[in-house]
Amino acid sequence: MYIRCEQELLAAGLGIATRALPVRTTMPVLENIYMEARDGAIHIICTDLQKGIQTQVEADVEEEGTILMPGRIFYEVVRKLPKGEVEIRTDSSRAEIHCQTSRTTLSCMEASEYPSLPDVVSSLPIILRQEEFKEMIRQTAFAASLDESRPILTGVLLEITGNQLRLVALDGFRLAMCQCQMGEDYGSLAAVVPASSLGEIGKILTGGDAKVQLTLTGTHLLADMGETRFVARLLEGEFIKYTQILPSEWQTRAKVECAAFAAAIDRASTLAREGRNNLIRLSMSQGNMTLYADSDYGKVEENIPVELEGKDLEIAFNARYMGDVLKNVSQEAMYLCFNTNVSPCVIRPVEGEGFLFLVLPVRIYA
Amino acid sequence: MYIRCEQELLAAGLGIATRALPVRTTMPVLENIYMEARDGAIHIICTDLQKGIQTQVEADVEEEGTILMPGRIFYEVVRKLPKGEVEIRTDSSRAEIHCQTSRTTLSCMEASEYPSLPDVVSSLPIILRQEEFKEMIRQTAFAASLDESRPILTGVLLEITGNQLRLVALDGFRLAMCQCQMGEDYGSLAAVVPASSLGEIGKILTGGDAKVQLTLTGTHLLADMGETRFVARLLEGEFIKYTQILPSEWQTRAKVECAAFAAAIDRASTLAREGRNNLIRLSMSQGNMTLYADSDYGKVEENIPVELEGKDLEIAFNARYMGDVLKNVSQEAMYLCFNTNVSPCVIRPVEGEGFLFLVLPVRIYA
Repeated sequence: MYIRCEQELLAAGLGIATRALPVRTTMPVLENIYMEARDGAIHIICTDLQKGIQTQVEADVEEEGTILMPGRIFYEVVRKLPKGEVEIRTDSSRAEIHCQTSRTTLSCMEASEYPSLPDVVSSLPIILRQEEFKEMIRQTAFAASLDESRPILTGVLLEITGNQLRLVALDGFRLAMCQCQMGEDYGSLAAVVPASSLGEIGKILTGGDAKVQLTLTGTHLLADMGETRFVARLLEGEFIKYTQILPSEWQTRAKVECAAFAAAIDRASTLAREGRNNLIRLSMSQGNMTLYADSDYGKVEENIPVELEGKDLEIAFNARYMGDVLKNVSQEAMYLCFNTNVSPCVIRPVEGEGFLFLVLPVRIYA
Repeated sequence: MYIRCEQELLAAGLGIATRALPVRTTMPVLENIYMEARDGAIHIICTDLQKGIQTQVEADVEEEGTILMPGRIFYEVVRKLPKGEVEIRTDSSRAEIHCQTSRTTLSCMEASEYPSLPDVVSSLPIILRQEEFKEMIRQTAFAASLDESRPILTGVLLEITGNQLRLVALDGFRLAMCQCQMGEDYGSLAAVVPASSLGEIGKILTGGDAKVQLTLTGTHLLADMGETRFVARLLEGEFIKYTQILPSEWQTRAKVECAAFAAAIDRASTLAREGRNNLIRLSMSQGNMTLYADSDYGKVEENIPVELEGKDLEIAFNARYMGDVLKNVSQEAMYLCFNTNVSPCVIRPVEGEGFLFLVLPVRIYA
């Protein structure tokens, strides 16, 4: 292989691909970056077998070829090079990287042993705006479980019904759901994507009007972002039947300003964190919500204005679960919907059906 | 105590004082923040007995008094409050902090058990520009040892000779020294200040033309920055006679551009780090310096222009020690002065005598 390319482009491409480099692995070959030079580009692949990222960088290809470069080191070398043209020449065991007055020689390996990414082909890929999908991931992936003992809960359900796409994550204590309308009818599809893979896709997605194509097979999701393709292995098993746990009615509905509610939760968390259960109590009556938390250090009381419909209510939550919701919502105001103080709180936008969060209360009242 | 003050001022004051809160301590009383309200201000003190910080925040004092507040929690509570007026009312066991619709009650303690900061008085305090002292600390404290087995090396020597102030730190492998001229003759003084305390002083010092007054006694340094006073306990014992190890001559002198040299060292470090000894070899001849590093992953060669006087030279260094020097110098160019490849390298400014670094080479040549 013999190529020339721009340092900034190569560093950016490696920055994307190396998101799939395994942190620890029992297969040393996966610690490498696969590079293939052909057709005016370097094609870069990293994979930890759960997820794989393929991206390409524009290059003058003087001599085509494939090679495995030592992952972390190669990326660090390229990242630290001065801006300008980088020249890379490889034979089967060595790569020479030349940029201005810097010349690095790295041991490398033949590419034949590197696993290829699975082919993910479907007749009808789903097309979304990248910005929209990025926001949907942000609003759901945080709620997935980190507990590997129930693997299915570490995933996010991606569910297509006609022209509606819905993402759902839950961990037994809270649920996050969001949905969008698509331009076409895609029939009925469902898949559970590991939340960590989906989170990485979210980091690669850009804002603006760029599009992402999603392709689902029985085993994999492909997110095609143009120059970058992300393949994620799906989780096996049935997702929780979450629609059964979504309350359809409410007895108490409070409209709160998100920024004020978030600040009050954040302040109350300081003391809640030191107490048992990380507990925040909410007491609502028309016009006002009071938040309480206490610990051995003391107690805090916050008051924020609310527009209340229905019954007054006292209820308690884990401060972290409420805080997580507020960190991931970008709305001015939202509704908190309650039935009793031992049934879940449902958090909805004031307009539309874009998202829904559900948080289980902590029982402290008889 | 009953006071009213601005949230931003109080948070800033606590941010400074809590730099002296101990991370771990066997004396629970030190986990508190001492507060005294009098004379239109809150006087705040934190200490871990090695260092103590006293600062003050303008306040309307309705009722004078003293109190101990639980350190980390109180600071976090105040930091998260909305901007605006904060009201604090205390009795002997509880403090109520009120800001807009937020009301926090913290357990607190009577202040009588809190250790007072030592009086540090001298007839002739040394007056410096804060910005200058901050820069001197930055250029020396990094070179002090972290190894507690020789406590004196964990300190920075503060040495006054007439109207010259000099700071010196060394750890057995490298030395950093810098000096400035003062407006007056302060006689002859020397003290060894723990590098960690001096580092905290450096973080509190501001830029610009503000002044700092340094007062030394046999046991303590006081840095008086106006609203904030920092007291550091000195280290006991004799500092190393460092002047004996400073070479007065050179056989080879290379003038290098700092930015290019730093970038080359940084790139070479990527591979040096993976190799044994974190080793970088320098090879100098007129007009050019080549840096080499290698490891199992490969090797790197960097070339930078130099103006060389004297003999050509090959010498090797620990990449980190050279990198540390370059991170803490803000000059365009500097001199590297050598005698042989087994004697120390001295790094000096191109003009003046503001700083001097000494780095021991690694012996790899016969």
